[in-house]
Amino acid sequence: MTKSLRLGIAGLGTVGVGVIKIIQKNLDLLSARAGKVIEITAVCAKSRTKDRNVNLSGYAWEDDSIKLARRNDVDVYVELMGGEDGPAKASVEAAIAAGKHVVTANKALLAHHGHVLASAAEVAGISLRFEAAVAGGIPIIKALTEGLAGNKIERIMGVMNGTCNYILTRMEDSGLPYSEIFEEANQLGFLEADPNLDVGGVDAAHKLVLLSSIAFGTQVNFSAAQLQGIGEISIDDITAAKGMGYRIKLLGLSQMTDKGLEQSMQPCLVPYNSPLGQLEGGTNMVVVEGDNIGQIVLRGAGAGEGPTASAVMGDVIDIARGISIPTFGIPAAQLTKAPAAQSTTPSAYYIRTSLRDAPGVLADIARGLGNSGVSIDRLRQQNHEGASAPILIVTHPTEPSNIDKALSAIAATGETTSEPIALKIVEV
Amino acid sequence: MTKSLRLGIAGLGTVGVGVIKIIQKNLDLLSARAGKVIEITAVCAKSRTKDRNVNLSGYAWEDDSIKLARRNDVDVYVELMGGEDGPAKASVEAAIAAGKHVVTANKALLAHHGHVLASAAEVAGISLRFEAAVAGGIPIIKALTEGLAGNKIERIMGVMNGTCNYILTRMEDSGLPYSEIFEEANQLGFLEADPNLDVGGVDAAHKLVLLSSIAFGTQVNFSAAQLQGIGEISIDDITAAKGMGYRIKLLGLSQMTDKGLEQSMQPCLVPYNSPLGQLEGGTNMVVVEGDNIGQIVLRGAGAGEGPTASAVMGDVIDIARGISIPTFGIPAAQLTKAPAAQSTTPSAYYIRTSLRDAPGVLADIARGLGNSGVSIDRLRQQNHEGASAPILIVTHPTEPSNIDKALSAIAATGETTSEPIALKIVEV
Repeated sequence: MTKSLRLGIAGLGTVGVGVIKIIQKNLDLLSARAGKVIEITAVCAKSRTKDRNVNLSGYAWEDDSIKLARRNDVDVYVELMGGEDGPAKASVEAAIAAGKHVVTANKALLAHHGHVLASAAEVAGISLRFEAAVAGGIPIIKALTEGLAGNKIERIMGVMNGTCNYILTRMEDSGLPYSEIFEEANQLGFLEADPNLDVGGVDAAHKLVLLSSIAFGTQVNFSAAQLQGIGEISIDDITAAKGMGYRIKLLGLSQMTDKGLEQSMQPCLVPYNSPLGQLEGGTNMVVVEGDNIGQIVLRGAGAGEGPTASAVMGDVIDIARGISIPTFGIPAAQLTKAPAAQSTTPSAYYIRTSLRDAPGVLADIARGLGNSGVSIDRLRQQNHEGASAPILIVTHPTEPSNIDKALSAIAATGETTSEPIALKIVEV
Repeated sequence: MTKSLRLGIAGLGTVGVGVIKIIQKNLDLLSARAGKVIEITAVCAKSRTKDRNVNLSGYAWEDDSIKLARRNDVDVYVELMGGEDGPAKASVEAAIAAGKHVVTANKALLAHHGHVLASAAEVAGISLRFEAAVAGGIPIIKALTEGLAGNKIERIMGVMNGTCNYILTRMEDSGLPYSEIFEEANQLGFLEADPNLDVGGVDAAHKLVLLSSIAFGTQVNFSAAQLQGIGEISIDDITAAKGMGYRIKLLGLSQMTDKGLEQSMQPCLVPYNSPLGQLEGGTNMVVVEGDNIGQIVLRGAGAGEGPTASAVMGDVIDIARGISIPTFGIPAAQLTKAPAAQSTTPSAYYIRTSLRDAPGVLADIARGLGNSGVSIDRLRQQNHEGASAPILIVTHPTEPSNIDKALSAIAATGETTSEPIALKIVEV
């Protein structure tokens, strides 16, 4: 085997170091599968002197990722720096312009600039691949783009942010409030520099919109995704959900309807013993429903050195094998601009608020719900906390717009002592 | 788009008809993804006149699959007839010799002749693909060959025969014995013409050995797989397992050890609430463990028109896209001949037998187990049935060879009134 595929790796954090370790450890195996020797020629990171517990002596060093991307001895530019703009974007553009293949784990970059980059990649005749950007080690991009290509995709659901899942399951296990577990996650280094990327659902939504693009043949449109983070989830919600046989998960949902593309990332109640409900910690799960396949479920580690680097290597080996398909499965020019649609699919909802402790208040709330077209399945008033009583309601299935009306009606009574929140109940 | 990819489909049973329906229904979508128009030019089946509820008028008819495979207007020969020899094998060989790509759902053919056919396909420079042969619609071949190619695979487990899963779950639900549910499955048309293919574990083992070949870079070796069917499972076993928090599943396991390749397909006890334990009816699950990825789980429909045809179309679209890799992931000449190894991994076991109702008998059994190096974790003697008492034992973890010795020792007491059986307990 004399041919080789030469990688330039930008970013030597967890994933970058993971990729180097895999290549050093499994070179013969990888090369047999790739049909070429996989070779790292150059690397680049912020600090040259930092100890990364991996031998970099065989690789050229670049301080500038753009220079790395343009090197003559690089066939594939592996971008593992992250960030939706800045060096990541500039260097990926430089690589494409220089005719290099690109492999990236950067969901933010692609969620914001995926369509433009995919178009540029096609013009340049190179592959732009991003398996590691979505759900860590789970080969969901390949499954959706290739394995399930014989299906009209109907719906995608996924739990794809390990930090949110960690916080929610830790709250349940410990009985501690959100603020304390948030701080614990922060101490453990689980949170992004901007925590809203995790707990606001932004990171998970970046992943979801990439899946949407492949599934529905649409241009990536992050701004159209409906986002609701986990910051409002209280320990009462978690306990109440558990008491009713549910668990709260930050759940992504994407589907194409007559009105357009629905994309939402929001905390939902899912059955406690369902595959989604049983997910713990950093494990991700993606559910794909297609017209022929029915339902397919993929589960695995959503982050971490080994799993994410495994996904990067899957892309690298594909490139070595000459596998070349458009970034989002069909040529970028054929990707449509789907209008963003709000969900109109009826669901049951969980509503929580607190009420002033006075006669007739509950009747006002019930009237507000009724007038909004929302009927009550179950209602539980909890022990008073001073002059205020938490109240938990499960509705019969109703359209999301009715829930919005109901929340306004509840607030308009002037009887609430906390902002009402509503969480969708998803029976999967 | 002027280019087309022309298919010749042999076999118009459930899967063949499913493929035709997908192409008729989703032609534009498939062609956009494939980058070529997917076109059926000719078909072939035993009976030309049978009503298949699908319009075949646009396709040429061949009575002979070999002629179909050689047609000048066929680029891809799609073999959906089944059978390890006969027309399936002859026609696939003819297609390869004629330089046609081959897509097949035929696990028996590949389990017995996969290595020779893969070698021939490489010499001919064509693709031989078989996603539909393993686990129905689950894109496990693609995941293992491509998506997880960056991993040294450590272990594969899978529940991959829907009929066995149906029988075992129906026995649990109904409380009826194996023989009655077997007959029910037969009436429903769930069983192969030779039922041993299903209930003997042969069909599932065909699938397992194909996965082994990809995972471990070895020549397919069906004869080396250890097989145990579900025919000996009694309703008592199912009830006892449930009482201890387990469910019985026909579970495949493949792993490479220092001594060689272990491949087994046997009924095992798995935790009731685990993903494997919760599988119902025809749903399949494959678990892959790799050095970087950790554990990945894929779940979906293991059979049926839509799912299996979806897998066939995944392969067809890959070929249209120019994706061309060796059948088992690395060139056939590099696949090794791994020696077959018996498992030496210690496990807990469930043992059931019936004993003559007499003093001292239980002590004899306990002594037999102890002398075999097997220690008892739990033991339950059930209500007498006449002069005989069923006895259920759960052992502490022990090597499989000790269990073999223990079964011989139990039988050698001369105190048993039924053949003792042992089922491995797998904590996954």
